[in-house]
Parts: sequence; C-alpha cells; structure tokens
Amino acid sequence: MSSLSERKARLIVHGDRPYNAEPPLDRLRTAYRTPAPDFYVRSHGDLPALDRDTWRLTVDGDVGTAMELSLRGLRSRFREVTVTATMQCAGNRRADMRAVAPVSGDPWDGGAIGTADWTGVRLGDVLREAGAGEGADRHVAFESHDGVAGHPYGVSIPLAKALAPETLLAYAMNGEALLPEHGFPVRAVVPGFAGVRSPKWLRRITVQDRPSDNPIQAGDYKLYPSDVTPETADPVRGHTIDAMPLNAAICEPARGASLKAGANRVRGYAIAGDRAVVRVDVSGDGGRNWAQAALEHEPDAPFAWTFWTAGLDLPPGEHELAVRAWDSAGQTQPALPDDTWNHKGYLCACWHRVRVSVV
Amino acid sequence: MSSLSERKARLIVHGDRPYNAEPPLDRLRTAYRTPAPDFYVRSHGDLPALDRDTWRLTVDGDVGTAMELSLRGLRSRFREVTVTATMQCAGNRRADMRAVAPVSGDPWDGGAIGTADWTGVRLGDVLREAGAGEGADRHVAFESHDGVAGHPYGVSIPLAKALAPETLLAYAMNGEALLPEHGFPVRAVVPGFAGVRSPKWLRRITVQDRPSDNPIQAGDYKLYPSDVTPETADPVRGHTIDAMPLNAAICEPARGASLKAGANRVRGYAIAGDRAVVRVDVSGDGGRNWAQAALEHEPDAPFAWTFWTAGLDLPPGEHELAVRAWDSAGQTQPALPDDTWNHKGYLCACWHRVRVSVV
Repeated sequence: MSSLSERKARLIVHGDRPYNAEPPLDRLRTAYRTPAPDFYVRSHGDLPALDRDTWRLTVDGDVGTAMELSLRGLRSRFREVTVTATMQCAGNRRADMRAVAPVSGDPWDGGAIGTADWTGVRLGDVLREAGAGEGADRHVAFESHDGVAGHPYGVSIPLAKALAPETLLAYAMNGEALLPEHGFPVRAVVPGFAGVRSPKWLRRITVQDRPSDNPIQAGDYKLYPSDVTPETADPVRGHTIDAMPLNAAICEPARGASLKAGANRVRGYAIAGDRAVVRVDVSGDGGRNWAQAALEHEPDAPFAWTFWTAGLDLPPGEHELAVRAWDSAGQTQPALPDDTWNHKGYLCACWHRVRVSVV
Repeated sequence: MSSLSERKARLIVHGDRPYNAEPPLDRLRTAYRTPAPDFYVRSHGDLPALDRDTWRLTVDGDVGTAMELSLRGLRSRFREVTVTATMQCAGNRRADMRAVAPVSGDPWDGGAIGTADWTGVRLGDVLREAGAGEGADRHVAFESHDGVAGHPYGVSIPLAKALAPETLLAYAMNGEALLPEHGFPVRAVVPGFAGVRSPKWLRRITVQDRPSDNPIQAGDYKLYPSDVTPETADPVRGHTIDAMPLNAAICEPARGASLKAGANRVRGYAIAGDRAVVRVDVSGDGGRNWAQAALEHEPDAPFAWTFWTAGLDLPPGEHELAVRAWDSAGQTQPALPDDTWNHKGYLCACWHRVRVSVV
C-alpha cells in the first residue's frame, strides 16, 4: 500500500487540514471503477487513526436490542454484499458557480466524484437484527470518530433509505480494505445521496424520531434559495441535500487543451441519481449544435455513473465544448449556473464547458 | 350523469374527432381531486361505446394460465384498492413550445393534467394470478377498443412498472364509474408515466419479451433531439416517454388578467414524477426575483401533484409572473423552452409564464 503522502501527490489538493483533494479529470475517466488512490477525499477534521481489532460500532436508540459490534462480529453475523455505486460530494463542480458570485467552501472541479465496488453488510440487516422501530418519521443517525469544531461528525438519513438494499456498512472498496482517508475500518455507503450522508470512520448508529441535531446535518449541507446570504441563512429556508441532481462532465480533453483540427474524441461521465441517463449531448460550439454521445452503461449498477464518448469534428480556432445529460424522466441540465446559484455552492449541475484551442 | 355534449361545453376543445379537450386552468386549481367532467380528455380515435355486462378482458402471452375476465370477475377475484395519482399528457403545455418553432399536435395549455382517486385492482395481482413470466426484459402490452388509423390503440410498459403496487386496472374515478371519455368500463392507470401508457377501454393485456410493436408505442410518443425533423425522425434516435419531468404551472391569475395593485394571490400546481416537490419559486418580474410559495402536500400520494399558493406584491404596470419548482434531488426547470424543444412538442417543462396588467 502506498503512503498517504504518496497518494496526496497524485491528487489536486484543496486543503491539508482537513484534507480535501480530487483527481484530475482525465485520470478519473481512465477506469469505470475509480482506484482508491485516485478517489476524491472530503474530510471535515483530522483523519482518525483507528485499529481494526479494537474498533467497535454501537447500534442504539429506538431498537429492541442495542448492539456493540466488532469488525469481526459485523462480518460474521451478516451476509456480505457488494454494490457498485458512485459517491459524490454535494460541492462537486462548485468552481463553476463562482462565475456568478462568490461561494463558500473549496473550489471543487468536476472530480469530487468516483465509483467503486463497495463491499460490506447491509445496514438494513443490522437494523433488523437490532429490532429497529419502524415508522415513516424515523431517522438513522450516524456518528463518526472524526471531530469537527469540537464535536464529532454526525449526520442522519431517513429510515426508508437506511433499510434500502443498496445502503451498506462497507469495509472494502474495489476488493481491498478501506484506505485511512476513505473511512477505515468501516464507513456508511448511501448510494444516490450526497457523500456527506455516507460518513467514514463510523462509531455509532442511532435510530431516532428526528433527524440528527449535529450541525453538519442541521445547519450545513442545505440547498438555499439564491437570495439567501450567509447572514440570512435560516436553516428552515434550506432543503436538506440527500439525493443528487442530474450532472455530467467532460473529462477529456482538459480545459485549455491544444487539439489538432479534424476528428477529436471527447469523453466524460454522466449521472442521474436514482434514474437512468438516457442521452448525453455534446457540443463543439458552446451549445448551438449538439451530437449524441455513445453511452457505456454498466449492467446492474443503477446508482453508478455512465461513461460516454463522442466524436467531434473541430475546425481550427478557439472552441467551447459543452455537455448536457438527459434522464429517464426527460429532464436535462440548465445551460448556466445563474438560476441555481446558492451561497454555499452546492449542486452545481449546469452544462460543463471546456475551452480548447484547435490548430 | 351529465351528457358528453354538456361536458364538452365545459372544456377548451382542441378537436372533436378524435375528441381532445382540457379545462381552463383556474377551474383546474379549484379542487385537488379533479372532478371527472373537468378532467382533460385525450383520444386517438372515436370513443368506443362499451357495455358493462358484455365487456371482457383477455390476459395472455407469456403467462401460465391465460384468462378472460368480466368486470364482475375482475372485481370479485381481486382486492379493490384506491390510489390518488395525477395523470398528464406527454403534450401538456405544448403551446409554450411554439415560441421556439412549430410543433405537431394539439396546442395544449397547462390543463392536460388532472388528479383523481383511481379505484380498481392491482395489475400486478392479475399478472401474478395468471402466472406471468418474470425477467428484466419483459413488457406488458395493452390493447384497447379504440381504433387509430385502422389499427387498435396499443402501448406497453416494462414488467417492473406493471408489477408496482401503484399500477391499476381502474373502473372508478373519484368514487364513480369511469365516464365514457375516460375509458369505461376499465382503463389502466400507470402513475408517474405519461398518460399515453394508461390506455382506456382496455380489451387485452399481453406479457411479452419486447415492447409493443403498435405504432403508438414504436413510433409515436418519443422524445427526439432538437435537430430531428419529421422527415429525419428515425425512432431509434427517440427515447420512449414513460416517466414525466418536473413541471409547474400558474393557474391563477389567468393570462392577460387585470389585477389591482398591491397584494395578489398566485396559485398553481407542481409535480415531480416519482420525486417530491420540495420548493416552488414564484416571480412577479419574469424571474429576476423569486419568493417561495406555500406547498399543500397530500399525505400518502407520492404520484400526485402538489398545490401551491404564493402572495406577490405587484405595483401598477405590465408584469410577467413566472413559476419554477424544485425536486428532492435539487433539480429545477429550465427558464426557456429553447433547449428542450422537439418537433413533436413533448415534455414542455420550462418556467410557466403569465403576463398580467396591474392597475
């Protein structure tokens, strides 16, 4: 296993404490399953150093039998499953929102996203074994070992999503134990939801009748109307970000690339949350004309991205490439970030544009 | 029961043979459950005149036991269920697409939509009783008594949607037998899908390994890229319209209304397919500034629309009101129809705009 500092050197690092980094887009597009060292890292505190043998997970709250599980106990008591799913940060592509007005947070390019085979046990199996109370207004709160401003990291998800078959307590990524920066020894994987709801370094799971009151859940990671400022951001006006919108990015060529005139290959990813990507349009002239890309769907991976490839015939000159995806409900992405701008820079999902020079 | 001609007189009639009509938007907004006489009618042929006692439904194809069911047999052999669901035409709001370029089909305003309590039996219960073959590539084809250009009306839906608990063979609407123009005696109700997939006047249900080859399914009701013309419309380039996109409309005030200066009430509907409507923005100045509407969610009706009400303070002058909804994945509607224009005028879901005069 490479060292953390070796892996950092491979990524575009936005911050060191907390450690936040993403891969360059062209490397992200080389493998459908993102190698763990190339997978974006989003941290809110220092990386916890946990021990496989002494780690314990508490399951409590509104359950029939509270449990304390070791990693060995988790693996022996529940059936192992593997789910291919994409994880993405709510702030992915935030950099593109700065064209409208300043936003808070790290300026993620389109690389705060990745796909892996996640192996672990179903959270639903654990909750059923514990005799979790049912009901439409139940929530499952997670607490982790990383600290944020003096409190542990904590979020929650609705019970229905916690019981869904795709939601895991994962201990492996692409067939290998989680790396320290990806949540070793055990993290939640909540496919389709923003990465913030898939906490790493888990230590406690609590079934309760309300969302987590941890500031990460109650105050941060909300989608606000455009008129809301940091000063006026009353959490009741924000919508809790769970499911992620339709999005797409051009991974090759890179921004500012110098291309040869004639046939050029354009490649990227698209994702439609719990829907299917049914069409990807690619433009060589900023959106005046569009060609349809070839899609590479992965079978049996409804929560994973779609890779796409298009050929564009480009004459000499300066060009703006653009991409937009369409989902199975006939929705597509907005041309510009103007109408979805929000002061925290979340859910940037306008057409991804890349300027290139053709000689 | 009123006569068909009396009911026609209540609606905006786009055509008489086939009969196509929609209610005015202000009347549509008066009741969450649309009264049957105010419900839009979309026909593709003449209205069949069917008899309750002699009507029979054939269930065949890839089933263990083919069945022929009378209305009495259907009601006595299967459990009755009621689902509150919105039905809408794939061409709802088509009129707004004509601002870009001509489109084919009737110029529906925003009234080709309605919500009802649909009562019947689960299609899934009937299919399971018949021993329908399973498999991811199965489809359930419907054939009806109405004729279109010399062939019967026919469409299909994926087997998974046919087995979903919300999908019905319905014989009642808001507690009363279906009206002749709404499919008497039995129609399919496929919540979340375009109305075209909920055929009326059913006569046959066939389980098969491919979509229906009826022209309604195979050629019509596809979403094409903007560059496709009627002359170049190869069906393989079109996406079959099943699920419907996020949409919203202003029902009051009406287009061209004359209002008094000061506080004015704006009301309408919004719908997000199988997702929730989490926010509705209303503008009094064409989209420069937005206020959030109050939402009236119906409990236990995930496939039904959301009614909304907003107050706008309008100064004297000419104003363009606008509305846009946001779904639970953080997606919203495009400002203009330009980027989603298609030659058949389907899935028009840009901001709905209403010009008013304030005196």
